[in-house]
Amino acid sequence: MAFNKRVKIKTILDESPVGKEVTLMGWVRTKRSNKNVSFIALNDGSTITNYQIVADPTIISEDILKKCATGACLKVTGTVVESQGAGQASELNAISIQVLGEADPEKYPLQPKRHSLEFLREIAHLRMRTNTFSAVFRVRHALAFAVNKYFNDKGFFYIHTPIITASDAEGAGETFKVTTLDLKNPPLTKDGDIDYREDFFEREANLTVSGQLEGELAAMALSEIYTFGPTFRAENSNTARHLAEFWMIEPEMAFYDAEDNQDLAEDFLKYIIQYALDNCGSDLEFLDKRLAEEEKGKPQDQRSEMGLVEKLKFVAENEFVRLTYTEAIDILRNSKPNKKKKFAYLIDEWGADLQSEHERYLVEKHFKKPVILTDYPKEIKSFYMRQNDDGKTVAAMDILFPGIGEIVGGSQREERLDVLTQRMEEMNIPQDEMWWYLDTRRFGATPHAGFGLGFERMVLFVTGMSNIRDVIAFPRTPGNAEF
Amino acid sequence: MAFNKRVKIKTILDESPVGKEVTLMGWVRTKRSNKNVSFIALNDGSTITNYQIVADPTIISEDILKKCATGACLKVTGTVVESQGAGQASELNAISIQVLGEADPEKYPLQPKRHSLEFLREIAHLRMRTNTFSAVFRVRHALAFAVNKYFNDKGFFYIHTPIITASDAEGAGETFKVTTLDLKNPPLTKDGDIDYREDFFEREANLTVSGQLEGELAAMALSEIYTFGPTFRAENSNTARHLAEFWMIEPEMAFYDAEDNQDLAEDFLKYIIQYALDNCGSDLEFLDKRLAEEEKGKPQDQRSEMGLVEKLKFVAENEFVRLTYTEAIDILRNSKPNKKKKFAYLIDEWGADLQSEHERYLVEKHFKKPVILTDYPKEIKSFYMRQNDDGKTVAAMDILFPGIGEIVGGSQREERLDVLTQRMEEMNIPQDEMWWYLDTRRFGATPHAGFGLGFERMVLFVTGMSNIRDVIAFPRTPGNAEF
Repeated sequence: MAFNKRVKIKTILDESPVGKEVTLMGWVRTKRSNKNVSFIALNDGSTITNYQIVADPTIISEDILKKCATGACLKVTGTVVESQGAGQASELNAISIQVLGEADPEKYPLQPKRHSLEFLREIAHLRMRTNTFSAVFRVRHALAFAVNKYFNDKGFFYIHTPIITASDAEGAGETFKVTTLDLKNPPLTKDGDIDYREDFFEREANLTVSGQLEGELAAMALSEIYTFGPTFRAENSNTARHLAEFWMIEPEMAFYDAEDNQDLAEDFLKYIIQYALDNCGSDLEFLDKRLAEEEKGKPQDQRSEMGLVEKLKFVAENEFVRLTYTEAIDILRNSKPNKKKKFAYLIDEWGADLQSEHERYLVEKHFKKPVILTDYPKEIKSFYMRQNDDGKTVAAMDILFPGIGEIVGGSQREERLDVLTQRMEEMNIPQDEMWWYLDTRRFGATPHAGFGLGFERMVLFVTGMSNIRDVIAFPRTPGNAEF
Repeated sequence: MAFNKRVKIKTILDESPVGKEVTLMGWVRTKRSNKNVSFIALNDGSTITNYQIVADPTIISEDILKKCATGACLKVTGTVVESQGAGQASELNAISIQVLGEADPEKYPLQPKRHSLEFLREIAHLRMRTNTFSAVFRVRHALAFAVNKYFNDKGFFYIHTPIITASDAEGAGETFKVTTLDLKNPPLTKDGDIDYREDFFEREANLTVSGQLEGELAAMALSEIYTFGPTFRAENSNTARHLAEFWMIEPEMAFYDAEDNQDLAEDFLKYIIQYALDNCGSDLEFLDKRLAEEEKGKPQDQRSEMGLVEKLKFVAENEFVRLTYTEAIDILRNSKPNKKKKFAYLIDEWGADLQSEHERYLVEKHFKKPVILTDYPKEIKSFYMRQNDDGKTVAAMDILFPGIGEIVGGSQREERLDVLTQRMEEMNIPQDEMWWYLDTRRFGATPHAGFGLGFERMVLFVTGMSNIRDVIAFPRTPGNAEF
């Protein structure tokens, strides 16, 4: 008595089996009726396209048809026939309709009209039933699969690095604490500090900010690995670019230098974008139109020069620009907005950290292409990045995308024990806690490199959405942990 | 000046390009020398098989050869020649060897001898460099990829459900708290309770124990989805089967009933096991031998009847047994160990919860096959499981595997709002907090079902390892959050 004898709408659209009797199940998007016929647009989430159900009131009772309101869930059996109208090849002449679950039009929040993205965020449990969000999450799925496929095909191994960690080398205090202590009455040491020896892990623990350090350990055994997991920042920033919980992809490769790292990152980014282009046609087409519509509301000078699909193709098909931080500083120093003092942070001296406005200038105005910026001053980068021979810069890279800014950050790692420990000392990184990290420099060290891609930023780029809360199912931000 | 011009050992083994000059990079596993020649077994993690480097001391200096100790990292350029010895088709005549990183034999913990799994757990940052662990983590990768491929090919969408949640419907108190409050000096309400309005999420938050409830929300829009992410239990159990942090796969499908759910779960489990058989040949062969070796140390009656690969083939190729809880109770009540009072928990009455000893009896002694147990008494199962017409049982299923016990737990979900809320009331589940979950029963409800697979238990089964801490890179257990 299996129930699932339906055919997916995506399959029906692909195959158009005219003359065949099939059963569809899905949710009503809209219904139009006159006294001779009802047209029901049914969607089952398998594709953005609704399938048209044609219901003859002499066959389907008025009582049933009344219940086929927006949001109701139906089981429809009927015959596939060639479509009379334009737009799709076939439609279904209903023989029977069973209402699996009603949706009271007085109470159901999703009515067939435009809802604001802000409103839909409040009902994140239902928003995947809209065209926009179902498209976003299908694209997100395709991108995630592309990530796994890319690395699998290249012989990389997926490593699940720990979510709960005791090391805070990178966290700089912006981590979430993880505890089972009674917060109202925590155990104290005789000095009056929290006695973490009584906690679950018998030490202070927090949520990971990156799997990189553990990823390096795995790369020193399996050569090429990647992580794909959640990471966390307890940063109190309420912006369209920040989440407290987000997914990161962090490949780490033994035997790669900085240039190998750049080559891999560029190839990887192009691959997953091309994969979306090849596998998400109808969703991207819809999102392209959505974005174009949205841009109409913006002043001319803030609109994108390219449409969404055009932009994706452009990035997939063109070489990224590669230049050093030093070269970028020269360009920025001599740029119009710098000379006319339009930048909020004027670029004056070598060593300045680049702000989002500078990154955007380089990518969107100067080069009009994705940019790989390399060899940053060591002072503004992490302790584990490999020092260049100039003694001033490190073999870092940031990849900057139009409209997104930094989408990838990476580096060749410092594999020389003496250079690494000296840098850790200078930066007050505790070496005791990191004995295991240093061991990989003590035993069988090798040049190696890696990078991190913020997955949601990639989904943002590919879907053309503008708020990062709209590309993850249930966003976590300050004050928000609903659902 | 890209560095990564090497060929992977897996590729060399597959292609044996005799006569070609190639560069390999990897770590020394062993070295045997006499005065005419040194043989170095090199491994780069791409495969379990070492590649033999033949070094002529008239070509490679004594000084270099001395540094080629176990654990050292080498870059070797040489000519591929047909192998003189047995075991592999080709080997490399070294033209030059560069020692990328040494490993002092006095200090390097991994020497070419058998180390205990317990010792290796202490050095989890290095254990992936051993045969056993590199095999385990390559198999783990293959299984993870198989999971994604299976669902992608079937049109399921991967959903990242939240890691930090405010709902504790399933947690029953065994959750980790997530906070940014100052534990030493937390803000208090005027009643003296912790004032969570001051915390990052402005409410109490914890680590998820399951993505199911959020997965259901997505299935009510996209039809067929799955999650694959970390889940957490703050359970103080130090066993070979429990982790505080583990990865779960949770598919959730609209339009599936209990039988559809069972069919999918069985098909899925067989697929990923077959995928490992097809893609991890040499690793499984090694793990098969390792297990056979380990079993030799056990008393005769505790040894497995089948070898590892034999067992995997058996599971992939044979139908699982399906029976109801009620039928299982009958079998158990009349079983020899029950009559002879050998069970620690004797089966007397319908309604008893099954213990591991009962599950193992059914799977390992009675049926000698994986078992799908269905239709459990509602009292021993979760609130969201669909009630059967008998009023006593729910449409639950547990899948039991030999040597593992429960590997999958699932059910058809209760889609009837009135039945669900009545059950929540009986079980004291707060309905206010779960408004979003109940909404999916208010609007467009439909029969649906899903299940959860503990990923590490599957890796345990496929690799034949016996402790779950040996199948995740950096295990988290009470008192352990190192690395």
